Amino acid sequence: MTVVTIAMACGLIAVLYGVFTSRQVLSASPGNEKMQEIAAAIQEGAQAYLGRQYTTIAIVGVVVAVILAMTLGTVSTVSFLIGAVLSGVAGYVGMNISVRANVRTAEAARGSLQGGLTLAFRSGAITGMLVAGLGLLSIAGLFWYLTSVSGLAPNDREIIAALTALAFGASLISIFARLGGGIFTKAADVGADLVGKVEAGIPEDDPRNPAVIADNVGDNVGDCAGMAADLFETYVVTLGLTMVSIALLVNASAAELTALMSLPLIVGGVCILTSIIGTYMVRLGGSNNIMGALYKGFWTTAILSVPAIYYVTWRVLGDMNTVVGADLEGMGGYTGMALFWCMMIGLVVTGALVWITEYYTGTNYRPVKSIAQASVTGHGTNVIQGLAISLESTALPTLVIVVAVVATFQIAGIIGVAFAATSLLALAGMVVALDAYGPVTDNAGGIAEMAGLPDDVRTRTDALDAVGNTTKAVTKGYAIGSAALAALVLFGAYTEDLNQYFPDVAVDFALSNPYVIVGLLLGALLPYLFGAFGMTAVGRAAGSVVEDVREQFRSNPGIMAGTSKPNYARTVDIVTKAAIKEMIIPSLLPVLSPIAVYYIVTAVAGQAQGFAALGSMLLGVIVSGLFVAISMTSGGGAWDNAKKYIEDGHHGGKGSDAHKAAVTGDTVGDPYKDTAGPAVNPMIKITNIVALLLLSVLAHGAM
Amino acid sequence: MTVVTIAMACGLIAVLYGVFTSRQVLSASPGNEKMQEIAAAIQEGAQAYLGRQYTTIAIVGVVVAVILAMTLGTVSTVSFLIGAVLSGVAGYVGMNISVRANVRTAEAARGSLQGGLTLAFRSGAITGMLVAGLGLLSIAGLFWYLTSVSGLAPNDREIIAALTALAFGASLISIFARLGGGIFTKAADVGADLVGKVEAGIPEDDPRNPAVIADNVGDNVGDCAGMAADLFETYVVTLGLTMVSIALLVNASAAELTALMSLPLIVGGVCILTSIIGTYMVRLGGSNNIMGALYKGFWTTAILSVPAIYYVTWRVLGDMNTVVGADLEGMGGYTGMALFWCMMIGLVVTGALVWITEYYTGTNYRPVKSIAQASVTGHGTNVIQGLAISLESTALPTLVIVVAVVATFQIAGIIGVAFAATSLLALAGMVVALDAYGPVTDNAGGIAEMAGLPDDVRTRTDALDAVGNTTKAVTKGYAIGSAALAALVLFGAYTEDLNQYFPDVAVDFALSNPYVIVGLLLGALLPYLFGAFGMTAVGRAAGSVVEDVREQFRSNPGIMAGTSKPNYARTVDIVTKAAIKEMIIPSLLPVLSPIAVYYIVTAVAGQAQGFAALGSMLLGVIVSGLFVAISMTSGGGAWDNAKKYIEDGHHGGKGSDAHKAAVTGDTVGDPYKDTAGPAVNPMIKITNIVALLLLSVLAHGAM
Repeated sequence: MTVVTIAMACGLIAVLYGVFTSRQVLSASPGNEKMQEIAAAIQEGAQAYLGRQYTTIAIVGVVVAVILAMTLGTVSTVSFLIGAVLSGVAGYVGMNISVRANVRTAEAARGSLQGGLTLAFRSGAITGMLVAGLGLLSIAGLFWYLTSVSGLAPNDREIIAALTALAFGASLISIFARLGGGIFTKAADVGADLVGKVEAGIPEDDPRNPAVIADNVGDNVGDCAGMAADLFETYVVTLGLTMVSIALLVNASAAELTALMSLPLIVGGVCILTSIIGTYMVRLGGSNNIMGALYKGFWTTAILSVPAIYYVTWRVLGDMNTVVGADLEGMGGYTGMALFWCMMIGLVVTGALVWITEYYTGTNYRPVKSIAQASVTGHGTNVIQGLAISLESTALPTLVIVVAVVATFQIAGIIGVAFAATSLLALAGMVVALDAYGPVTDNAGGIAEMAGLPDDVRTRTDALDAVGNTTKAVTKGYAIGSAALAALVLFGAYTEDLNQYFPDVAVDFALSNPYVIVGLLLGALLPYLFGAFGMTAVGRAAGSVVEDVREQFRSNPGIMAGTSKPNYARTVDIVTKAAIKEMIIPSLLPVLSPIAVYYIVTAVAGQAQGFAALGSMLLGVIVSGLFVAISMTSGGGAWDNAKKYIEDGHHGGKGSDAHKAAVTGDTVGDPYKDTAGPAVNPMIKITNIVALLLLSVLAHGAM
Repeated sequence: MTVVTIAMACGLIAVLYGVFTSRQVLSASPGNEKMQEIAAAIQEGAQAYLGRQYTTIAIVGVVVAVILAMTLGTVSTVSFLIGAVLSGVAGYVGMNISVRANVRTAEAARGSLQGGLTLAFRSGAITGMLVAGLGLLSIAGLFWYLTSVSGLAPNDREIIAALTALAFGASLISIFARLGGGIFTKAADVGADLVGKVEAGIPEDDPRNPAVIADNVGDNVGDCAGMAADLFETYVVTLGLTMVSIALLVNASAAELTALMSLPLIVGGVCILTSIIGTYMVRLGGSNNIMGALYKGFWTTAILSVPAIYYVTWRVLGDMNTVVGADLEGMGGYTGMALFWCMMIGLVVTGALVWITEYYTGTNYRPVKSIAQASVTGHGTNVIQGLAISLESTALPTLVIVVAVVATFQIAGIIGVAFAATSLLALAGMVVALDAYGPVTDNAGGIAEMAGLPDDVRTRTDALDAVGNTTKAVTKGYAIGSAALAALVLFGAYTEDLNQYFPDVAVDFALSNPYVIVGLLLGALLPYLFGAFGMTAVGRAAGSVVEDVREQFRSNPGIMAGTSKPNYARTVDIVTKAAIKEMIIPSLLPVLSPIAVYYIVTAVAGQAQGFAALGSMLLGVIVSGLFVAISMTSGGGAWDNAKKYIEDGHHGGKGSDAHKAAVTGDTVGDPYKDTAGPAVNPMIKITNIVALLLLSVLAHGAM
């Protein structure tokens, strides 16, 4: 077996783990009839939404596929479709497990905290392994097919184009899925809260609230399916891009190139294995510390990955100290040891981002406590402090990324930076597992409430859910952090593509070129505009939920009396339509903006400046997007947990004025952390990949 | 008389206008005894605060002056001190007029709306003309002294250093004044609201609230003195920088250089004259439209400035079509016509920014109405919609700036961009007048309330104040817009300085250099961190106000009964101490960060990369700062006016649930728009100027 086929085998193992573990999860008891009935309503709603969402995306996908077929040929089109379909599959399957694990988690939590934790985490792990496994299978499979079956050289332009198209397919789906799911989940959540908690004065997840099923559906389609599509995209883009940049930037023999390009694949492969081992380590200790239990899994994976990465690097390159290849820009080649150190830096960055996110969103530290404290003086001060924490939370991740960029670049140039991003993403299976665990526990709590299970069940699911807020924030910080690391690599690929395609066009990327400033400013604008769209969409869609629920209460007084059931499906349907309608324009923003900027600047100042503005736009979007995304996701998580902290009995506990203020902060944080913030990551990728594709299309003279 | 001395004469006219108009303002009736007593308390508090603030700043100033004296010599040190002192004077005198005009405006508003408007606007105009006049006098005077008395060539390094040091002095004071004043005003405002409106249930500006005087003092020390120092800084930096970039980048005879460098001065001079004419046009029409009345003044100034600028350009350059000078970077010289068009673009940008800001913050348009509408469903949706508008409001200004940069660069290169910034700032006298009018009306309303004047007086001052929210937002957008335009020019000065000082160090500013990315990211971080500090500071200082007021209510029950007076001075004193303490660390952030980045990167990767990271940091801070500042200032203004819109009787009016939600939004918007947001502008300038000074210091081998 070659290195690439071993990597494929690892991907397959991840998928098999998913199949095997889903059997385990599904074999658990789904609880009593009432619980099953509620769970069925959630399943139905989630499936209906995803079906409609994917139908809409498919239309966009087919249009794009036709354009690609006409401009870049069959291989790129097929690669695009593979990326798109698998991104959809990862989200769809993950969501399907999640909507079945929720009720089983509620049932298991009747027995013990450990029981609930195990079930919820296993369900998350299925999604995690599917994301990493399908991602790895798609890249490795494509590379294997094109090199072994089609017999192309590893750095053939066809392979570069295919990997880019694969990434584009994954990204395009993921921005729709992230944003559409994000709008759905928060419109339902905010709408349900407004009309239920605030107007009708009934608790969260009260079955009399017609929006309550939509709220629970939202957890699955947004936090599970949308997140999975996003991380699938991040995985494919990062590993694929590392391979592309090796192909573009390294000057070496075909054998050496094949070895270097296989290395990210096999690193992804072994880290799937270490992630699987890690999932079995998630166990509560004597102190019942849930975060500690999850950390056991994470740290096991991270620590086992060190020797595993060393071993595969050594096996693939044959020797850790022989210089392989020579950088086109004069790096003078790489040793296995150098690449290993860069990957270790990637692992350290992962750990650091996890720790920083926990600090900013965990209930044990200053930031969340300060928001809770500020809630005592009212809604306004809660929001002010939350915004202050949002802004502040960008500092440490930025410093970590800056240090990592400098260190890896000093060790092994741009390729070193790329390998750090690869090892960061290699842990995606485990990180996604931690994240996908969240919506399951959130749903389990809702089902426990609606089914009228004893209070201690809800207490257990709440404890599980509070940790979910942190793990959800972790994944978002992790995804955007990898985007920032990848920025330099993407830009390297862009400039090298330019050199190869347009050797006669002298592009000036110096900051003294005004078109570079223009590109930076326009790129920086994108996350702001995109964020504005996302926030507005949630507000508008939540408004339609409020109106529907009010209408249901009015026309059917039996609902509030508890004598007749609300029409859950109607609310789900309304949110579905609203979310699908609202996701389209903002999702097209990063697809069309780079194209518009290129053509407008070229018309005004010539092609060289068009390329300069386009290139600098790619960096502008990350320079601003990093901050927008981190501030939104960490800030939102901190607001949510400040509310939970108060509900745990601080500052007057549930029902106090401080609690009311904290609920406001939580509502504000909702679209911040689950709609606008996380969608910035795929948005950045799309902008970058569209730019790379535009270069190929222009080079083929088709436009 | 030479062009420069005519410019100085114009500056003097502005100062004389100030003296003459202050007599007019002070001759108006200061109202009854009760009103005078309240006004005296505000005056006393404001003077006490400014006295303490300037003492603290003076310590920092002296330390910096000593460092400059040891490294750059006497001329730079004296220039620094002139900039610092005049920045302080502009703020101090403006504030002194403002605290006397407030009570007179309240008295005049007893008679008629027009009476109140005239008095408040004239008071604002004094501050406006002082800012522009003192700014122009300092730059023109310095240039005149060094060229005529010292006999230096116009592009002598001593002149460049002196103009840079002058700008540094102005900037250093202004960041402290903006931030300290911003913290004071919003801590007092938020604190007073929390403990008065929310806890004690007494109306805004109720004399029983011990924080009410502090709140009114805040308007003067923040929105008047802080703003004046900020705009003085912006004026000096922009005009000075245009001259510096001509000196550095244009290759011409001494006569041509003198002519070109005098042009910004005389443009500033004639625009002072058109601004003075404009101030006399501020009159209510039949419809009593206050914004319309202010616009009459603004548009008169803007339109008169067109022929005025044409005339002086023609007089200074002798001919509109002869090519003058040759750009070092191969622009092939400039014609008067080209520079005239660039300055016209600057005027168009000013108009566009004013219009866009009014759109986003005025009560007649979609953004404010959408926030008011969102208030109906609660605190959370109000804040969500406000944040959405904040984010969205960055788009149009960015596009305007981008188009202006491209157009002016196409016409006349970097010098063209600089002249656009100059004509933008030339209208500062009028723009500051519109802004400084705001705090006077705000105070007048407070005094009317506290003195128990009839309700119709308060209605009139409220109408004047609502417009003040928009004009205050306008100035902030205008200042940050000029910073974005100036970014390219500052960077040009930085690179040219590098070339001259360090011809042997090859610095790579291309985006493919990782240290450029590092610089961009670290620069982009600064506004976020700075914003976090500002928001936290307000929260913390407001907390101390709340505690003090609670303590006063507790220990002296006569206060609430209305039988004994609260200790206003104690609250003022507490806010003063808190604001001064909180302003220091964040203000030093932009001073020390560029130095730290240079030394750290140089230590890691050598001096060339140190310069690259430092240079790109300058652009990173503006690329991110532009968005942070606009989103905060426009968003904050929109929140404030959404509350006013509801108070005007929409969505249930005062006391409704929608109104409560809108009060929350207003509270959140307060530190956004008056503390963190506006201070980003001087922060950007400081970062840039410190970098330029660092280059001179390094070149002199002193560090």
